[in-house]
Amino acid sequence: MTKKVLIAGFTGAMGQKTVALVNSLPDFEIVAGLSPIAEHDPEKYHLPADAQIFEKLSDIPAGIADIWVDFTTPSSVYDNTKFALTHGIAPVIGTTGLTDAQQEELVAISKEKKQAGLIAPNFGMSAVLLMKFAQEAAKYFPDAEIIEMHHADKKDAPSGTALSTAKLIAKNRPEHETAPDEIESLNGVRGGDYRGIRIHSVRLPGYIAHEQVLFGGNGEALTIRQDSFDRQSFMSGVKVALEKVDQLDHLVIGLENIL
Amino acid sequence: MTKKVLIAGFTGAMGQKTVALVNSLPDFEIVAGLSPIAEHDPEKYHLPADAQIFEKLSDIPAGIADIWVDFTTPSSVYDNTKFALTHGIAPVIGTTGLTDAQQEELVAISKEKKQAGLIAPNFGMSAVLLMKFAQEAAKYFPDAEIIEMHHADKKDAPSGTALSTAKLIAKNRPEHETAPDEIESLNGVRGGDYRGIRIHSVRLPGYIAHEQVLFGGNGEALTIRQDSFDRQSFMSGVKVALEKVDQLDHLVIGLENIL
Amino acid sequence: MTKKVLIAGFTGAMGQKTVALVNSLPDFEIVAGLSPIAEHDPEKYHLPADAQIFEKLSDIPAGIADIWVDFTTPSSVYDNTKFALTHGIAPVIGTTGLTDAQQEELVAISKEKKQAGLIAPNFGMSAVLLMKFAQEAAKYFPDAEIIEMHHADKKDAPSGTALSTAKLIAKNRPEHETAPDEIESLNGVRGGDYRGIRIHSVRLPGYIAHEQVLFGGNGEALTIRQDSFDRQSFMSGVKVALEKVDQLDHLVIGLENIL
Amino acid sequence: MTKKVLIAGFTGAMGQKTVALVNSLPDFEIVAGLSPIAEHDPEKYHLPADAQIFEKLSDIPAGIADIWVDFTTPSSVYDNTKFALTHGIAPVIGTTGLTDAQQEELVAISKEKKQAGLIAPNFGMSAVLLMKFAQEAAKYFPDAEIIEMHHADKKDAPSGTALSTAKLIAKNRPEHETAPDEIESLNGVRGGDYRGIRIHSVRLPGYIAHEQVLFGGNGEALTIRQDSFDRQSFMSGVKVALEKVDQLDHLVIGLENIL
Repeated sequence: MTKKVLIAGFTGAMGQKTVALVNSLPDFEIVAGLSPIAEHDPEKYHLPADAQIFEKLSDIPAGIADIWVDFTTPSSVYDNTKFALTHGIAPVIGTTGLTDAQQEELVAISKEKKQAGLIAPNFGMSAVLLMKFAQEAAKYFPDAEIIEMHHADKKDAPSGTALSTAKLIAKNRPEHETAPDEIESLNGVRGGDYRGIRIHSVRLPGYIAHEQVLFGGNGEALTIRQDSFDRQSFMSGVKVALEKVDQLDHLVIGLENIL
Repeated sequence: MTKKVLIAGFTGAMGQKTVALVNSLPDFEIVAGLSPIAEHDPEKYHLPADAQIFEKLSDIPAGIADIWVDFTTPSSVYDNTKFALTHGIAPVIGTTGLTDAQQEELVAISKEKKQAGLIAPNFGMSAVLLMKFAQEAAKYFPDAEIIEMHHADKKDAPSGTALSTAKLIAKNRPEHETAPDEIESLNGVRGGDYRGIRIHSVRLPGYIAHEQVLFGGNGEALTIRQDSFDRQSFMSGVKVALEKVDQLDHLVIGLENIL
Repeated sequence: MTKKVLIAGFTGAMGQKTVALVNSLPDFEIVAGLSPIAEHDPEKYHLPADAQIFEKLSDIPAGIADIWVDFTTPSSVYDNTKFALTHGIAPVIGTTGLTDAQQEELVAISKEKKQAGLIAPNFGMSAVLLMKFAQEAAKYFPDAEIIEMHHADKKDAPSGTALSTAKLIAKNRPEHETAPDEIESLNGVRGGDYRGIRIHSVRLPGYIAHEQVLFGGNGEALTIRQDSFDRQSFMSGVKVALEKVDQLDHLVIGLENIL
Repeated sequence: MTKKVLIAGFTGAMGQKTVALVNSLPDFEIVAGLSPIAEHDPEKYHLPADAQIFEKLSDIPAGIADIWVDFTTPSSVYDNTKFALTHGIAPVIGTTGLTDAQQEELVAISKEKKQAGLIAPNFGMSAVLLMKFAQEAAKYFPDAEIIEMHHADKKDAPSGTALSTAKLIAKNRPEHETAPDEIESLNGVRGGDYRGIRIHSVRLPGYIAHEQVLFGGNGEALTIRQDSFDRQSFMSGVKVALEKVDQLDHLVIGLENIL
């Protein structure tokens, strides 16, 4: 049975990649798009000719689609997600900008409604698997450090994925004493400290987006590395989300948690 | 409740490391050792003073221990494992040399007897996790190659772990077409071909034992690497096996399958 | 003093990158372009308004430029290089397709004429430095293996740069005995053998163009790695060639030999 | 012609490795040893039977050896080096602890006496070549960061070799503007800052001693990595020093400067 998809933000770069992806999947069909600025001409945006284009949430009938893919803006993502959850549509959210409090509220709503959904800060499968594996490895290797490497134009550090990885490791590793008596003869050289997990951010021209997690144990080491060369890579994760989201019974945060 | 351990091959290098490990674990106790050559002086081998030392299988009472750790020889491992399985002791086998047919027979016996046990060709946690993660990643990244690197004295290639990894990937990845029209202008340069997964073996002085699995997808890459610097690393895997083996209901092959 | 540059093949992708590069360098000036197909409208191709456009070699006056940059085609590169060498212009050749015999003849002409020039199969500075360093390291580490990794669409293996690197190592390393008694249980797993140096070619989607040289010695290892993410990287090598070519007294093969 | 070697500190671990090395080299001969504590029994320390053993500097005749290898203590290395330089013996100093001022004074003495010599903080050839190559690459890739990785017991950071590498890069790279407007949302995450070169120190169990230098440029990257698995690796550098030291005309700091 074909699943019906609504794409919020279908005119943007990620939205258009999603349009192309869903069009290529035999078991999915685009039935609608949401955009406050789009013309009412579906084919201009490579949507099926009979897809409906909506300008605002209040125009959208409940249950018009099975899945709501969202690549919109930080200012609209909260309202969009809430609307989907309360109108029988499973949200798959790639838009960033939700606060922790908003996420918790949305999860609570989803549990009450028994409505499936997914919020994924990162749809790159290599990054998602890195996080999943790091979380598992931490059970056996409590000693871990993270090195992330990005192009020189990325001005903030650490990357969101590196910080998420550190959080997952911290949550999963056994109680662990860290070295109390280290000496830095050059300030900062041991990196940033997230609950005992050191994070190192490299910024160099030429690089794109890369992350390594290094685990060390008695006489051995384990390293997990991912390289993102191109945002096209996100679409493999969106595909996985489309295929898996309706097996959930509430809103899940993180693609790594539904693999 | 303290679990009772018998160590077969307690006089060897790995056996002695196991003795030290079990002595350090509060929830485990060495009650016996098996060795055709040892003197009957437990403390000489760092065993508890009241541990029993047996010379041959027929001297060992059924149920004397909960767990049988085996670091013996290829010629005795089959009889030892069978004895443990049929005398109510869960075998944890680090000895190599069992044939595929012998393994199958032992598994069948374990299922009939509902007897837990584990055969682990590799107890290094970094190698074990690499295999586990490679197996999972293959579902999302069907394109994979393996590079293993060992010291120059290792004359055979590929390594057993590399081949095991390739088998796990082959079994788990989706149906996948591989490039039919490659041209090698230097024979062998594309590596060994295990069901479409290329394996590359590097042999260099200085290196110890290392393996990388490279996955490539649309615009991204994922790499899992493990480094073994020292056989001491095996003991972390033995510890995991001791803790988990009695949760099984039959003989399992591969530590990665009980994590 | 400003140096005058002629660009052969200025309409192509690499030619246009070269136009942009030379326009950005204060000490260099484009005075002419060679193209059998271009319109006689310099500004259309971002050339200075007074640059001359030539359709064929015989139209070009001797000495019109100091340097001849060539990104043309395999069928014209030999004639172009010979013309430059014999008309007082230092060729900087990025076009591939010259045979070994043609290269030798051109070098001989350059020596007779005492004419500077450079043929560079690879202008990527990371690849060029990798080759230079590998050549130096081989004096101290005779044991080396090469791993090159390219996108899955590259059907031939090994890459030209990998083979060039192996040749440089073979020429520079001390007399060296290699293991005679290796056993491949999977055919090809030890890679391609260039005079005792093993080359391994990885082909995976997502990857772009990467090469590693691994050296191993007593208790230590040295690895040199380069990653090419974008052909834009070639322009840093062209800039180096422009700056250094007139310090030569004959035609040199390989940018790594003039650093 | 056989060169005569005196080994200061021949009873220590590195001293004994040096004894074994020199004994294995046909063109070198141990003629003397210096140790305040050794017995006067050369063969006990694997010295040739006719080697002389001295307790203190004042007992050593001028010119007794061509080369003075020193693996002693921080408190004696200055006097030893000065003695060698002023008594016609080329010092090869592996002992650490000389201050910058002492090094400068010793170099000045060597120039006045035209006496060859070498001070090498690190004799590992992989580390030495890494420093040499990093210094060369910096001319073409001014953007560089350093990651060094050591076992968890190393309490100080960064490593001496990492800092030396940063100094060499800073000295050799062209004038270079670094990002002024970076934001660290986790303090220290961008590493230690040595004149614009970021250094990151990883400390994990299992690791031994490793360093990477990462260079990034337009569309490409170059990485140089060295791994020290065993102090045995130092002997390859001592051998190079023995072979090259007498070609110098003064005291040189750093093995990388005589390759």
